[in-house]
Amino acid sequence: MKVNGVAYRSIWPVTRDGRRSRVAIVDQTRLPFEFAIAELDSHDQVANAITSMQVRGAPLIGVAAAYGVALAMQDDPSDGALDAAVRRLLATRPTAVNLRWALERVRALLAPASEVDRAELAWHEADRIADEDVELNCALGAHGARLIAAVHARTGRAVNVLTHCNTGWIATVDYGTALSAIYQAHDAGTPVHVWVDETRPRNQGLLTAWELAAHGVPHTLIVDNAGGHLMQHGRVDLVMVGADRVSARGDVCNKIGTYLKAVSARDCGVPFYVAVPSPTIDWTIDDALAQIPIEDRPGAEVRLVRGRNAGGVAEVELAGVETSVANPAFDVTPARLVTGIITERGVAEPAALARLFPAARALR
Amino acid sequence: MKVNGVAYRSIWPVTRDGRRSRVAIVDQTRLPFEFAIAELDSHDQVANAITSMQVRGAPLIGVAAAYGVALAMQDDPSDGALDAAVRRLLATRPTAVNLRWALERVRALLAPASEVDRAELAWHEADRIADEDVELNCALGAHGARLIAAVHARTGRAVNVLTHCNTGWIATVDYGTALSAIYQAHDAGTPVHVWVDETRPRNQGLLTAWELAAHGVPHTLIVDNAGGHLMQHGRVDLVMVGADRVSARGDVCNKIGTYLKAVSARDCGVPFYVAVPSPTIDWTIDDALAQIPIEDRPGAEVRLVRGRNAGGVAEVELAGVETSVANPAFDVTPARLVTGIITERGVAEPAALARLFPAARALR
Repeated sequence: MKVNGVAYRSIWPVTRDGRRSRVAIVDQTRLPFEFAIAELDSHDQVANAITSMQVRGAPLIGVAAAYGVALAMQDDPSDGALDAAVRRLLATRPTAVNLRWALERVRALLAPASEVDRAELAWHEADRIADEDVELNCALGAHGARLIAAVHARTGRAVNVLTHCNTGWIATVDYGTALSAIYQAHDAGTPVHVWVDETRPRNQGLLTAWELAAHGVPHTLIVDNAGGHLMQHGRVDLVMVGADRVSARGDVCNKIGTYLKAVSARDCGVPFYVAVPSPTIDWTIDDALAQIPIEDRPGAEVRLVRGRNAGGVAEVELAGVETSVANPAFDVTPARLVTGIITERGVAEPAALARLFPAARALR
Repeated sequence: MKVNGVAYRSIWPVTRDGRRSRVAIVDQTRLPFEFAIAELDSHDQVANAITSMQVRGAPLIGVAAAYGVALAMQDDPSDGALDAAVRRLLATRPTAVNLRWALERVRALLAPASEVDRAELAWHEADRIADEDVELNCALGAHGARLIAAVHARTGRAVNVLTHCNTGWIATVDYGTALSAIYQAHDAGTPVHVWVDETRPRNQGLLTAWELAAHGVPHTLIVDNAGGHLMQHGRVDLVMVGADRVSARGDVCNKIGTYLKAVSARDCGVPFYVAVPSPTIDWTIDDALAQIPIEDRPGAEVRLVRGRNAGGVAEVELAGVETSVANPAFDVTPARLVTGIITERGVAEPAALARLFPAARALR
């Protein structure tokens, strides 16, 4: 997508002196207040960027981890270094399955290869995963855009979509997941307006507002508390979110607060859709509530809020360290509350998800 | 309640040179970062204090408005001045019914009285309303504390109560509503731990954390998004909130986001209680969703966040004025999601609420 007229992906390899040596990212801890590029030159720096959420979003952290293995292989292509890099990168964040998926894919390719080929293979595979992510998100967005267009065809007015967190191009390599659907609907001429949840504690809603503004999509920022009220009053036509992991039966693990919107959507009769590329589906588990580890993030994310002030960008402290804080980063929306899961192969009710992916289903 | 060892109410008349001339309040826009007293010397200043939320909380704004009439009568006890003061004060905030209730009570007393008596009558009636608020909150808190004790008796462990917004002594004249129950449970030796919702956009959860810390009640601050996840995992024994207006059939209008907690509590089988003194019940309406006006507050409350920084207290801007913002301040929890309403006369299921107040019911 374009930033100030220049097309960007959220991550790309950097070539210096004819060889790949680094990975560039858009530093998301500085958005939306500053647009800054950071360069990472080791798998350890990639791991730190994932942990600190300089890169974030389930699809993007999978791709970042793949590039992290490439950086590690460049330094040391031994079996030990491969294992250590995969282990280090896998430990960064526990919830999104894309991380494990991408690392296992790269490891499976590299393990039988000779050491001399590993760096090149890893760079190539990371590029493929990145390119595939773009393709998958483009395809699933087209399916989602048709859902939005169908609401417009029925009502004849702008479609109000409520979203949570950031599922835009910067949460992926490009396009986004739920936002891919919104962008494609908007680009196809379907009038759409987005209710943007602030998404405390990290306020990724500000990233969503920044993306939507850049793309010219009408939107309104709201606090996380407001969505239920809007649904009660018929001001939300559908909810569309992404996910960090979807179980085989269609339970959805996503940013903390998603479940509250799903349960109120059900109470208000508002359809609740989840847009994911297939690498976000974990076919090995059914019961997400019992089986997906929920990351506890640092309390500082609750205690501190970042924004602009007269001097630039600053943080204020809402509560000091004397105040106990809990910061679970994700929750689980049970499949029974999900209207449909939007994938690159089409939209399925949770119970029908496996039928879209017969080969993956066979893996279970 | 005590602040730094000194007993305070949240509002009190100030006597200078042997006569009442002002009303003192705890300035809640500066809490929890600073504890500051403000003095108001006209009904217009009281109106501004209500609008700006220097005083807030349904019970407290009713009392503040009553004192506002006393200040107005002191300046000019004419019928015209009485009408103007009531009109001005009533227009400050539309949602909490306590405001209308207190103003109508004072007006009904003053209208037939001679002008020379009106100021004295108004001061006296405002004092009575304030004292009654303390009594009602003390009584309802005792009923609520028994609910908490009953959970402890059943489970044998600390009772986890989730609350939203601030329902403490500073939201009332003293004691609070839901927090009155928690204080009394704690004081009676029932082990209790409170999950404190941050309550964006105004972050009144910080006021709750400040109150609970001062009283020694164990508590944990969480973002508004986290409560559903905690309920799903059995970490909330009951939800206890206040209200700005309860309809005759038991619909509950309260701080935005309350409905999301109520609907997830129902989904998770967690009891959902609402603690209110009877002046918060509006016997003239049934369907709160259709009949209670929901205040739209300024967008700056969403755009700006206040906290501590190195220099003291400061605001940072999350989004500029180029970002559209919506800021509905309340939502409605339908009676079907409410387990019980805790009043000074006991706890009733919504459908049985009117039976606790037969005289009020006759007024309908």
